[in-house]
Amino acid sequence: MFASRPVVHPMEVAAPANPAQQPQGVLMKDLPGMPGTPSGLALRVTQLLLAAVSLAVMSSTSDFATVSAFCYLIAATILQCVWSLSVAIVDIYALLVKRCLRNRRLVAVFAIGDAITCGVIFSGACAAAGITVLIDEDLNMCSENHCSSFQTAVSMAFMCSFSLSPSFVLNFWSAAFAYSRVVAAG
Amino acid sequence: MFASRPVVHPMEVAAPANPAQQPQGVLMKDLPGMPGTPSGLALRVTQLLLAAVSLAVMSSTSDFATVSAFCYLIAATILQCVWSLSVAIVDIYALLVKRCLRNRRLVAVFAIGDAITCGVIFSGACAAAGITVLIDEDLNMCSENHCSSFQTAVSMAFMCSFSLSPSFVLNFWSAAFAYSRVVAAG
Repeated sequence: MFASRPVVHPMEVAAPANPAQQPQGVLMKDLPGMPGTPSGLALRVTQLLLAAVSLAVMSSTSDFATVSAFCYLIAATILQCVWSLSVAIVDIYALLVKRCLRNRRLVAVFAIGDAITCGVIFSGACAAAGITVLIDEDLNMCSENHCSSFQTAVSMAFMCSFSLSPSFVLNFWSAAFAYSRVVAAG
Repeated sequence: MFASRPVVHPMEVAAPANPAQQPQGVLMKDLPGMPGTPSGLALRVTQLLLAAVSLAVMSSTSDFATVSAFCYLIAATILQCVWSLSVAIVDIYALLVKRCLRNRRLVAVFAIGDAITCGVIFSGACAAAGITVLIDEDLNMCSENHCSSFQTAVSMAFMCSFSLSPSFVLNFWSAAFAYSRVVAAG
């Protein structure tokens, strides 16, 4: 597995004393929230739970299928659950075998995946919020609809997209940081 | 004005031959689309025009005020027009006096401003798109409403948010790049 490097160095191979001697494309700093750290895993589990709650609440309403925006929100939360679960499994593996996941290419893949899922779930939450506000405030038809369920699902989806943004910002920042070190080294 | 540095060096002061001797926090590369470049100015003018067209088309409909999401889209396009116009004026000034705007703090301010306005106009476009699809596809009430105007305004707002993303990515990347050089230098 070339995408990670061991944190625990064998006694025969001394760990590089000078950070400038580390292999290119590998980051120095261990920022909280990065992939492969306990706080990064906590962020992923939070995202997974929020997306799952949003999915469960929205799909429990009987009439979500009549509105396209609600169907789109359900698709977005399913995508988010799959992505967060995949990255969480990678994080758990990295924590168990004590390996860093701060390789330049891997960080770039995580940043792109976070950007896509964040955009998809944020757009789904905004579209569903527009419909919910229309039903609730503009038309006053809450008595005939499941307004509280819609509001819960939308707010969970918004919180999920907000919990995604630290992951994305950290990964994107780290990718730029690692890339600039490669440029500076050669 | 400490936020910029002259591109044209006087004859007495030689330009630093080695990029490592440049002042800290100033970027080396002149990427197209960065603030202070002609392509950056073109991006800003594009954003301004798209937001202005979206604002004009949406406000020309008689019944936008009855839907909260459409009012929010109008507010978002006004914010976008103000932001793009401000940055375009700074760009024109920088191009006229031949100064680079690639200072670390200035690039960070541009990145944060782009992120906020991009998020606001994207959420407005998504919410308005949710309502437009509801009227058009789910309820089939286009005959009573200005569906084509709504669709035009929404698509212009989406194109505006997509034209914002290169500006944001370039500025954010440059801020991380400049910060990593400051860290590497000391």
